[in-house]
Amino acid sequence: MTTITCCQFSPRLGEVEANVDESLERFGRAVDAGARIVVFPELTSSGYAFADSAEAGAAAQSVDGYAVSRWKQAADEHNAIIVAGFCEANEHGRPFNSAALLVPGRDPVIYRKVHLWDAERTVFTPGEAAPPVVETEHGRVSVVICYDLEFPEWIRSPALRGADLICAPVNWPRTPRPAGERPGEVVRVQAQASMNRVSIAACDRTGVERDTHWTSASVIVDANGWPVALADLDRSAEEAVTADIELSESRNKRLSDFSDVFADRRTDLYSAPGDDAHRAVESETSEDPLR
Amino acid sequence: MTTITCCQFSPRLGEVEANVDESLERFGRAVDAGARIVVFPELTSSGYAFADSAEAGAAAQSVDGYAVSRWKQAADEHNAIIVAGFCEANEHGRPFNSAALLVPGRDPVIYRKVHLWDAERTVFTPGEAAPPVVETEHGRVSVVICYDLEFPEWIRSPALRGADLICAPVNWPRTPRPAGERPGEVVRVQAQASMNRVSIAACDRTGVERDTHWTSASVIVDANGWPVALADLDRSAEEAVTADIELSESRNKRLSDFSDVFADRRTDLYSAPGDDAHRAVESETSEDPLR
Repeated sequence: MTTITCCQFSPRLGEVEANVDESLERFGRAVDAGARIVVFPELTSSGYAFADSAEAGAAAQSVDGYAVSRWKQAADEHNAIIVAGFCEANEHGRPFNSAALLVPGRDPVIYRKVHLWDAERTVFTPGEAAPPVVETEHGRVSVVICYDLEFPEWIRSPALRGADLICAPVNWPRTPRPAGERPGEVVRVQAQASMNRVSIAACDRTGVERDTHWTSASVIVDANGWPVALADLDRSAEEAVTADIELSESRNKRLSDFSDVFADRRTDLYSAPGDDAHRAVESETSEDPLR
Repeated sequence: MTTITCCQFSPRLGEVEANVDESLERFGRAVDAGARIVVFPELTSSGYAFADSAEAGAAAQSVDGYAVSRWKQAADEHNAIIVAGFCEANEHGRPFNSAALLVPGRDPVIYRKVHLWDAERTVFTPGEAAPPVVETEHGRVSVVICYDLEFPEWIRSPALRGADLICAPVNWPRTPRPAGERPGEVVRVQAQASMNRVSIAACDRTGVERDTHWTSASVIVDANGWPVALADLDRSAEEAVTADIELSESRNKRLSDFSDVFADRRTDLYSAPGDDAHRAVESETSEDPLR
């Protein structure tokens, strides 16, 4: 079993050193409590609600800046993995919405968010590379960021490449939901985990930032899709969300004697990406009352 | 708004005429109560728990057999759509696990289950064609069957081709779940619906058949992924599960001012089907403690 903690907290907009220092304090407490893999929110270093790209650029750092170098040092010192979002400087234009994966004794691995949510496309440069899958002493760890989780193609990719755990720094804006329902983002994390038989740890943030209220729904889901740990959705507060996960379960893709979530894929019948986006709808008539 | 009903009931193994007659009674009651689209379980005509392919073959019928021709007649008479599973005869070998889509005034549209669950592969011949998308007066209707729902590639296909509603005859075998959790199958239907912004109506069966207890979790989910109607999971009984759904919501793929579940796909970065299934895991070391 591997102890995983999501440190759900409230980074403050633009206060990079203070945010990183607070993440390090929380990391120390998580490790003291037994965590070996610790996940932080999207844009932990900088906060999220930038007015524009210039404001984001002012909070951006390169990989050798304060945020990633301090996280690397802490991961090495405590012999535990850190996954944390940061605003990454880009000398060619708008910054990247990135996450660093710090494995003790290794160089930082950087993933840049590919699917930019809403007005993020006016603030950041999208990533162009698949999620990394990195061998560690606990198993193979991958990283995606927030809205990336909403695209099944993007979770299939690291799962098919052998990821045992997908860590996802997120900032989920709060939206209305029917009484008694979990946030849709949590439901989709459960589904993505179980359809791929891979564990997912999503670390959300909390608090209010300019006009945005955050969902505060950090969740750690096992390879069966069950939420082993879920933040207290009523409190909506800073919280360390912790679960013990048997990561080797992600190596078993079987559902039954004959069924296997990967072997049962009918790749011979699936369309190439983009192929079917504009295919004409099959129809026996020209009527279309909804158009 | 379109009224959709899932007629959750208990077909009896091998009793084709009795099962079809019972489905027609239930269809009549659903239509009298206002339903315009009525979904029945997987293998409504035959039951599910066949010992082998020969037993399934004995309950199999061609498209002009009793089941589909009676359903077509009823759809025409009541001016309402029927989607129902049936065991389809195959002169070349094992029968198909099929579903018929009966739109009033049209020829039957047949879909053959592509992803065969567990030992079904020893009983049935898998389908080889994508889910149909058929224009109707209520919107564009598609059909998949049970385990097909577990593959995001297979739901993307009709969604990208413009489906407003995906009808899914299912037979979900009951498996253990943590207290307070919905069946994983329902969670995945919610996620598939919301990731594609398409409505899904899944009609489960109930009862016990040989060794199999059925989950009895028929559900109708809107394009936001919320279950508008869900069978009573405690009763686990025969039940008409009904919801009024605004199918035109499935035409709006927007999530926010800038975000759109289809336009935001990064098809330029997604792997071709099967391409990444055996790609080597990226690794800086040869250690792999979980293998």
